[in-house]
Amino acid sequence: METIGEGDDVLLYLDKKRTYLVRVEAGKQFHTHKGYVELGDLIGKPYGSPLVSSLAVRFHALKPLVRDRILKTDRRTQILYEKDIGYLMLQLGVGSGNRVVEAGTGSGALTIALADAVRPDGMVYSYEINPSFQNVASGNVERAGLMQYVELKEGDVTTGIDEEDVDAVVLDMATPWKVVDHAHAALTGGGVFVSFSPTIEQVMKTVSAIKGLPFVDVETVELILRKITVAENKTRPQTQMLGHSGYITTARKVLGLTNLAL
Amino acid sequence: METIGEGDDVLLYLDKKRTYLVRVEAGKQFHTHKGYVELGDLIGKPYGSPLVSSLAVRFHALKPLVRDRILKTDRRTQILYEKDIGYLMLQLGVGSGNRVVEAGTGSGALTIALADAVRPDGMVYSYEINPSFQNVASGNVERAGLMQYVELKEGDVTTGIDEEDVDAVVLDMATPWKVVDHAHAALTGGGVFVSFSPTIEQVMKTVSAIKGLPFVDVETVELILRKITVAENKTRPQTQMLGHSGYITTARKVLGLTNLAL
Amino acid sequence: METIGEGDDVLLYLDKKRTYLVRVEAGKQFHTHKGYVELGDLIGKPYGSPLVSSLAVRFHALKPLVRDRILKTDRRTQILYEKDIGYLMLQLGVGSGNRVVEAGTGSGALTIALADAVRPDGMVYSYEINPSFQNVASGNVERAGLMQYVELKEGDVTTGIDEEDVDAVVLDMATPWKVVDHAHAALTGGGVFVSFSPTIEQVMKTVSAIKGLPFVDVETVELILRKITVAENKTRPQTQMLGHSGYITTARKVLGLTNLAL
Amino acid sequence: METIGEGDDVLLYLDKKRTYLVRVEAGKQFHTHKGYVELGDLIGKPYGSPLVSSLAVRFHALKPLVRDRILKTDRRTQILYEKDIGYLMLQLGVGSGNRVVEAGTGSGALTIALADAVRPDGMVYSYEINPSFQNVASGNVERAGLMQYVELKEGDVTTGIDEEDVDAVVLDMATPWKVVDHAHAALTGGGVFVSFSPTIEQVMKTVSAIKGLPFVDVETVELILRKITVAENKTRPQTQMLGHSGYITTARKVLGLTNLAL
Repeated sequence: METIGEGDDVLLYLDKKRTYLVRVEAGKQFHTHKGYVELGDLIGKPYGSPLVSSLAVRFHALKPLVRDRILKTDRRTQILYEKDIGYLMLQLGVGSGNRVVEAGTGSGALTIALADAVRPDGMVYSYEINPSFQNVASGNVERAGLMQYVELKEGDVTTGIDEEDVDAVVLDMATPWKVVDHAHAALTGGGVFVSFSPTIEQVMKTVSAIKGLPFVDVETVELILRKITVAENKTRPQTQMLGHSGYITTARKVLGLTNLAL
Repeated sequence: METIGEGDDVLLYLDKKRTYLVRVEAGKQFHTHKGYVELGDLIGKPYGSPLVSSLAVRFHALKPLVRDRILKTDRRTQILYEKDIGYLMLQLGVGSGNRVVEAGTGSGALTIALADAVRPDGMVYSYEINPSFQNVASGNVERAGLMQYVELKEGDVTTGIDEEDVDAVVLDMATPWKVVDHAHAALTGGGVFVSFSPTIEQVMKTVSAIKGLPFVDVETVELILRKITVAENKTRPQTQMLGHSGYITTARKVLGLTNLAL
Repeated sequence: METIGEGDDVLLYLDKKRTYLVRVEAGKQFHTHKGYVELGDLIGKPYGSPLVSSLAVRFHALKPLVRDRILKTDRRTQILYEKDIGYLMLQLGVGSGNRVVEAGTGSGALTIALADAVRPDGMVYSYEINPSFQNVASGNVERAGLMQYVELKEGDVTTGIDEEDVDAVVLDMATPWKVVDHAHAALTGGGVFVSFSPTIEQVMKTVSAIKGLPFVDVETVELILRKITVAENKTRPQTQMLGHSGYITTARKVLGLTNLAL
Repeated sequence: METIGEGDDVLLYLDKKRTYLVRVEAGKQFHTHKGYVELGDLIGKPYGSPLVSSLAVRFHALKPLVRDRILKTDRRTQILYEKDIGYLMLQLGVGSGNRVVEAGTGSGALTIALADAVRPDGMVYSYEINPSFQNVASGNVERAGLMQYVELKEGDVTTGIDEEDVDAVVLDMATPWKVVDHAHAALTGGGVFVSFSPTIEQVMKTVSAIKGLPFVDVETVELILRKITVAENKTRPQTQMLGHSGYITTARKVLGLTNLAL
């Protein structure tokens, strides 16, 4: 069983709504409204171990998953949810060794998922036009220990993409339709294009741009996630629900002269 | 740009509903209702290349993605859809180097996704009680070139799981509640349990079993996928829709003596 | 308990998918693949009574509800479903004594619901541009015994609406945005406008037209209906589902010179 | 055009989220955070007229619809939403002249919808076990001017229903399964049973009770309402959404000795 070491991140779990991503250091205390915990006590213990606070409340130290890191990125810039990222990742088909272009980086939530998927021998090229987001993203990717698989680039992909022959391009930005031609140029034959957009007007413009280029397998979907309360005589979908985050449009580049979006 | 070689699989794409996963061999013809194509003509060409049939219909040769292989597994045994697999994968948090237990194997759709995620140095232990399914799965995993990351096991996980200290256990079987204790025993501290079930009674029993053991972060969700038609003056969610596939229940093992499902 | 008389309609119910709306006449046989029944046998019996066929299969004779008549209208012209009609009716706020304009009539499904709601002293003015639909609708309304509350009009509402001071206008037609100004003119102060449209482009144009006129309380919604299988150890939403029928846009006319859509 | 009179209710509309159901009286002021309005100024004016506040903010005086009165009932006791009430009403098939049993009354939201549907010559018998709710309901029904069509009864329907030969029974209460047999006894042949329940356990028990009695046309559904923002380059389903209110189960009574739920 893997043990926790000095300098490792753990997810301190109290309950569904109260989790904390913290770095374990000898002598370091972490304060919560349920008392403080001695993080150094975790050193040498296995993941999953309990940690009791000064107020006798029990936390558990989980090994952070990619999804935990996604949730802990800065939510101000974050519009991608787990439901969308899981689907995006499967559609992108990204795995070890792949090279992927992302724009914009935002807080780095999707960057982390992509980097984890392409390791140990692939690369994520992530563009962001807003320098302040880049700092946030850099911190998040660094903390996840994935920086060696990521190149954070400040730049505007509506004017072009530097990379060539990439396996996938994924867009989460305001004007994805302005990047469709650059994405086509950057993709390898059969490479996957994916765009995430909140509004239907963005989707319409993006699909229109796709249909003007040699792409096939064009599809737009929306995912709705319902959380279910499961407890005796109380089982039901929850009352509060995220109504909409965005639409996901996918396509695959083919080689040839004419457009034939199908 | 990567080129297609003798013995490679390609996805021949005609349109959204007509795609064919075929092995490229010199001299081999593949017949469709749109005429036949000479698969050998693809050798040496880049992925994404067009291939014109004897009836002058153009196909494109795409590099098969994991999601293509999932779609091409035997649908008789298949109840997991892309929407569910994408979410399952992110919840499981499986990446390169992880060890995962799966039951049942079914046609191997999820096995392929798991194997692709754990490569190049992880392992999937996949249990199946029905030998006839195992043959189907074996063919699908072999064809995907992922057999070195998979151990297909004939066995009944309701009586126990052989592995220890695994990072994740994922169940897609009729009686998941009978496996919750074995899954807990097999998991490493902080390891992830995920179960997929079509009916709410299965979910109720499984969650009840989870709540009797040291698990935290218990959640049940359902994913609804809407396909959107995007075309000028015709933009709308599609009329036909998959109403339900199943519920996804997740939990994480913690260490300690008492139950404290939160 | 009300009894069935000569000339009454009954809904012969075999199972969920096999129901027949028939007129009871002495000596008349009704043939089904489960044998024939003698409709005259129902005369003098209460609604809900069983009727056994020549092949010893039991049917039941239900009193037709508005929703039964909606289901039995010609489905070729029918895009309104029960989920939509129920919501439309509540939004329209139509009750006894109200005067309502409808366009287009289609097969008369909504016409029947409206006529049933305004009786015994209201009126439905229903416009249809296609004479062949009008015949279908006329038959359906007549059969429901509601013709005295309906005026079927052949005409194009994009050129104007004859009525004034009506309580509500409801549109189920291809170009509702061309009727918004005529609807505003026809409505009484505070009167309700409702439009049903399958595509988002229709909605965009219609809402844009509404925002240019003195309307308040503008809202667009979509209703999704899930059918649930409820049976021991089989309880779950059904696999097949209607993905989309249309969007419902509502607004209320106010008096004054300027636009102020809120 | 109908004009507003002394003692009439109007819905003062400011915007979607700020509406006020008030009674018009000469000399009466109504105070809001946008200044006060002189309600007496509305006397003699048509519905839909503007009313300007002391702070120069314009309200509009709408004629209250049934749906407005539903929204303005006491929300503490209210779990029925417009989406559910519209569907319930169509399923119940209630119209002028019908006799309907309801339990429980709650705040009277559904009572008002039922009473409006059965007028001018039908009757709603509404049971409530909690006397404090009855006072709330009484005020709401009275204010809607519908009391002559409603008999509010304090009582426990799990012990029996007084009425016979009613056209419909509708339940919105914690233990509907305990009322199924009484509902069957109270219904006329072919009469409609409808139950609304938040949890799936309630639905399971209720459907099980239905299947033990002569009912046909048994169905359980759930309605999901999505509100759509429609504005240039902002068109999308709204972020916040009601995830679940309840399931609706319907059935129709037939005559005969045996159970045959189909």
